[in-house]
Amino acid sequence: MEETLLTSAAEGVYVICPTPFESDGRLDIASTDRMVEAYLKAGATGLTILGIMGESPKLAAEESLTFAKQVMSTVAGRVPVVVGVSAAGFAAMSGLSRKVMDVGAAGVMIAPPSTLRTDDQIVSYYADAVEAIGADTPFVIQDYPLATNVVMTPKVIMRIIEQSPSCVMLKHEDWPGLDKITTLRRASAEGQVRRVSILCGNGGLFLPFEMERGADGAMTGYAYPEMLVGVVNLIKQGRRQEAHDLFDRHLPLVRYETQPNLGLAVRKYVLKKRGIIASDTLRKPGPKLSPETIAEIDWLMERIERSQQGSLAA
Amino acid sequence: MEETLLTSAAEGVYVICPTPFESDGRLDIASTDRMVEAYLKAGATGLTILGIMGESPKLAAEESLTFAKQVMSTVAGRVPVVVGVSAAGFAAMSGLSRKVMDVGAAGVMIAPPSTLRTDDQIVSYYADAVEAIGADTPFVIQDYPLATNVVMTPKVIMRIIEQSPSCVMLKHEDWPGLDKITTLRRASAEGQVRRVSILCGNGGLFLPFEMERGADGAMTGYAYPEMLVGVVNLIKQGRRQEAHDLFDRHLPLVRYETQPNLGLAVRKYVLKKRGIIASDTLRKPGPKLSPETIAEIDWLMERIERSQQGSLAA
Amino acid sequence: MEETLLTSAAEGVYVICPTPFESDGRLDIASTDRMVEAYLKAGATGLTILGIMGESPKLAAEESLTFAKQVMSTVAGRVPVVVGVSAAGFAAMSGLSRKVMDVGAAGVMIAPPSTLRTDDQIVSYYADAVEAIGADTPFVIQDYPLATNVVMTPKVIMRIIEQSPSCVMLKHEDWPGLDKITTLRRASAEGQVRRVSILCGNGGLFLPFEMERGADGAMTGYAYPEMLVGVVNLIKQGRRQEAHDLFDRHLPLVRYETQPNLGLAVRKYVLKKRGIIASDTLRKPGPKLSPETIAEIDWLMERIERSQQGSLAA
Amino acid sequence: MEETLLTSAAEGVYVICPTPFESDGRLDIASTDRMVEAYLKAGATGLTILGIMGESPKLAAEESLTFAKQVMSTVAGRVPVVVGVSAAGFAAMSGLSRKVMDVGAAGVMIAPPSTLRTDDQIVSYYADAVEAIGADTPFVIQDYPLATNVVMTPKVIMRIIEQSPSCVMLKHEDWPGLDKITTLRRASAEGQVRRVSILCGNGGLFLPFEMERGADGAMTGYAYPEMLVGVVNLIKQGRRQEAHDLFDRHLPLVRYETQPNLGLAVRKYVLKKRGIIASDTLRKPGPKLSPETIAEIDWLMERIERSQQGSLAA
Repeated sequence: MEETLLTSAAEGVYVICPTPFESDGRLDIASTDRMVEAYLKAGATGLTILGIMGESPKLAAEESLTFAKQVMSTVAGRVPVVVGVSAAGFAAMSGLSRKVMDVGAAGVMIAPPSTLRTDDQIVSYYADAVEAIGADTPFVIQDYPLATNVVMTPKVIMRIIEQSPSCVMLKHEDWPGLDKITTLRRASAEGQVRRVSILCGNGGLFLPFEMERGADGAMTGYAYPEMLVGVVNLIKQGRRQEAHDLFDRHLPLVRYETQPNLGLAVRKYVLKKRGIIASDTLRKPGPKLSPETIAEIDWLMERIERSQQGSLAA
Repeated sequence: MEETLLTSAAEGVYVICPTPFESDGRLDIASTDRMVEAYLKAGATGLTILGIMGESPKLAAEESLTFAKQVMSTVAGRVPVVVGVSAAGFAAMSGLSRKVMDVGAAGVMIAPPSTLRTDDQIVSYYADAVEAIGADTPFVIQDYPLATNVVMTPKVIMRIIEQSPSCVMLKHEDWPGLDKITTLRRASAEGQVRRVSILCGNGGLFLPFEMERGADGAMTGYAYPEMLVGVVNLIKQGRRQEAHDLFDRHLPLVRYETQPNLGLAVRKYVLKKRGIIASDTLRKPGPKLSPETIAEIDWLMERIERSQQGSLAA
Repeated sequence: MEETLLTSAAEGVYVICPTPFESDGRLDIASTDRMVEAYLKAGATGLTILGIMGESPKLAAEESLTFAKQVMSTVAGRVPVVVGVSAAGFAAMSGLSRKVMDVGAAGVMIAPPSTLRTDDQIVSYYADAVEAIGADTPFVIQDYPLATNVVMTPKVIMRIIEQSPSCVMLKHEDWPGLDKITTLRRASAEGQVRRVSILCGNGGLFLPFEMERGADGAMTGYAYPEMLVGVVNLIKQGRRQEAHDLFDRHLPLVRYETQPNLGLAVRKYVLKKRGIIASDTLRKPGPKLSPETIAEIDWLMERIERSQQGSLAA
Repeated sequence: MEETLLTSAAEGVYVICPTPFESDGRLDIASTDRMVEAYLKAGATGLTILGIMGESPKLAAEESLTFAKQVMSTVAGRVPVVVGVSAAGFAAMSGLSRKVMDVGAAGVMIAPPSTLRTDDQIVSYYADAVEAIGADTPFVIQDYPLATNVVMTPKVIMRIIEQSPSCVMLKHEDWPGLDKITTLRRASAEGQVRRVSILCGNGGLFLPFEMERGADGAMTGYAYPEMLVGVVNLIKQGRRQEAHDLFDRHLPLVRYETQPNLGLAVRKYVLKKRGIIASDTLRKPGPKLSPETIAEIDWLMERIERSQQGSLAA
């Protein structure tokens, strides 16, 4: 399936998939399929699974593979699937990476471990990671200091890109990070570094500006992915006011979803309420939504849907 | 000036004041006065100075006192002024606290040092701090894990309240933190703990919900404080949709201002553009706004003002 | 093999085993066997495998199990074997725990993840962990703040002991930690908490004092385990000066081995030089010993051996 | 007093001075004088005050200056005095630095704030610090990751040395750090970077090896500084076995003193018992020595003194 390998030309919206569980905590295959179809219908140009928001550390190794296979088989090549392979050690990373690439993944995503401190440590880590996954496996750098506690300067990112031709994408979720996109894009324009795809995470909180700074799209899991698709397309068409209007209607819920730890529970609740997954169960350790929280999410969804912009059908 | 001491009945909006500098970095006294008047005109029920967003660690001890005196003299007892006295040691905390209370402060605010880890360490720290500032000095607990890296459970906060009658307020900026407000309010309602004032920080990002959960107001420095005042009042009057509508019009800029490190520079720029302070200078170390960032702030201000809700006159 | 389950009566020296690799990074089974025999000959009363110093995060799941089986089969019930099952998630912890208990482990060891902050979070985490490993699996709390960044007060440890009858041991490696042992032992003496075994880690750096404070032995991997055995026995026999004399002769190397990150490489080098393992290979990421470092270790070994106390034959 | 400015040729033992307090917490001037004389008699070639172990954050600004003046006046130019000026902001750093240089300090020492992450952030911070203290004030880089959480590669240290001619010394206390000394010395030998003085901290735990790697001496506060002096001199004279023998006799207490937080209380207790300071009082927050801890220190002192190498008279 060589034609589906991830490249530096990737763009659009790669939806970060949660891992749906039954209420007893088992993998929910039916919901997985329904979710994949809903995301594709919403306009996803790619999917990303087994990331931080996919509860990947809570899955047994076999479960991760089962889930990956299921997604890949449902997607059936319609869009590229990126798989998070961040792991405590290179043996686990190597094993998972090989297995998912064998069943059709387009590439893998790697976040740095929280112990890295210096520039050189970060650059070396990615060199070792490439050795672990193989130089022919396209990979995404996940730059998410709020979660990883690792700060990568543009210079460090450029060193990683230069040392590894298989680095094809930056998942940008530094915070603040808008000037970082500008710096990287300027460096590519001036020929200092190969241009890679930049898709933005961080819950989408700055998406319209990120697009305007030179990002190619989003890689995040906001529970109304059609909004992400809409914003990306409107910005590309130069329809700036409309893009911001659309985005701002969703911003109250986007913000609510970016609450650390709680965010995934919020997201799964919305997906359940929208009929996309059957249960909003999280595996332990994970928060439970209080009645007050649920009422607030309901209120936010109602306000979005009243503005007649939020349905998958839109 | 005993009548102006901070009490558990405090409510409304305590605006967090930045420290205005001339373009060469000296204290800007004229801007300080203008800012105080603008905040009072916007409906502030109190002011807070020398907090994290007041660049307090960047001031020499004499400058802190000069600035505090200037603010107090301009306020002239119209509203209570809370002063941040967080310091690396109790000698400095004690000295500053005594001096500002002598010149009319209503109370002081104390954030825990980032080295604290266990519940008992946190509770002991506040006992020692009360010894340092004196048991007759009303104080505010600043609960801001994103900045301090110290996580306080509701139980810990209740222990501090119980051990110190001079604890009159919680500056709530845990994130996520809505359920924490609910827990604390329920505990007070059930008689488990004395009720203290809860004012919310975190840039105001969740203000309408925080009010609905039982907060008494806001303590934050968003550059359009009249919006904070409006939201607090609308929620108190039970006009929920209007409160959220007003808040949501500002949310794009509120979000933009919550970017760590960059946020204060954004805020000072907006205050300058609104004619409230003369220069948006930050002392080192501090970020510089890029042209792209300035253009984005301009865009966000324009959208707010076009919606005819943003002027101080409103 | 119920008779070999770990109990609160455990004492002596549980040697922390490194995982021996061939020079190409594969598991070295022959060295594993030789190492096990050397440790038993040195007087180990138990072994601990797949801990932090066992490079467990660098092993694939299958390798961990292979190694555990090999050790268990070589030990053949002569002493209890404790297996580290700390994992990023409960599914992995549960799986590994079940498998190693099935092949004869005496119990498992669990370190808290670095994200835990409050007392309640730590206590809850261990409750969830017990659910994952099963209430009939004896477990060891690993209290090692320097590595985990989680600080557990004596009160928290006592809450975990009380909530879980299957908690049978504390691996004590807080630093400083001598008063913690005294506090826990006093609490048991006064009937406030069930008495569990306390074995000390931290490279053995405070072993004689730890024994005098009430510890039951050591659980660490110093490359001359016969010294650990000697010290534990001498202290139990009340021969204090001799215990300290023996310990102090080794302290220069003990100290050298406690260097973070570098320590394991030092230890493997000594074990290789003593003929216990064939190669001192570490898996990536791991330090390489410089020629200067090697010369220093050689010097320290020579000084120990010249003092005629260091050989396995002693 | 220009002739006493600190230079890159500094060597020997700069004793880190604690700040002596009366039992009620006030500065103890008489003990300060006695301590200074004891350190000079022990062979100190310099003194360092107001460092982390000098409880500097617990002193009011006036107290710091009073203490610095007292030390300088007692030293009366016999040896250089280095003053710690690390502060939360540059205004405070600048003020203290100017004042202590005015009263005769030879230079200042600056540790990086714990918020720094990337290589460039560290290098910029030192550029700003030099601006704050003035380019004519000699300064020492304090490289102490265990306390600061900032990791500086040799490359970063070399960039700071190159950018600031006033950088004359590295206080080396990275851990592990022996290879760092070798790398820096090799870089100087090869002409890649100007040679600065390297004095070693970290409680002296690796002093003999550090000297052999190319350090110029020690900057630490072990309570028997005559041992530090002896080791430095013996190594310089090439008497290696004697140096290690002397060091190893003290290592049990050196190790005991390196316990984080507790260490300073141990050190003050030893200094009190040796008649050097009157009280071992620490300001809050600080640990209290338990009876068991005191008995252990007594035991360690007895063993050192029995070996007839420990007295100031030796």
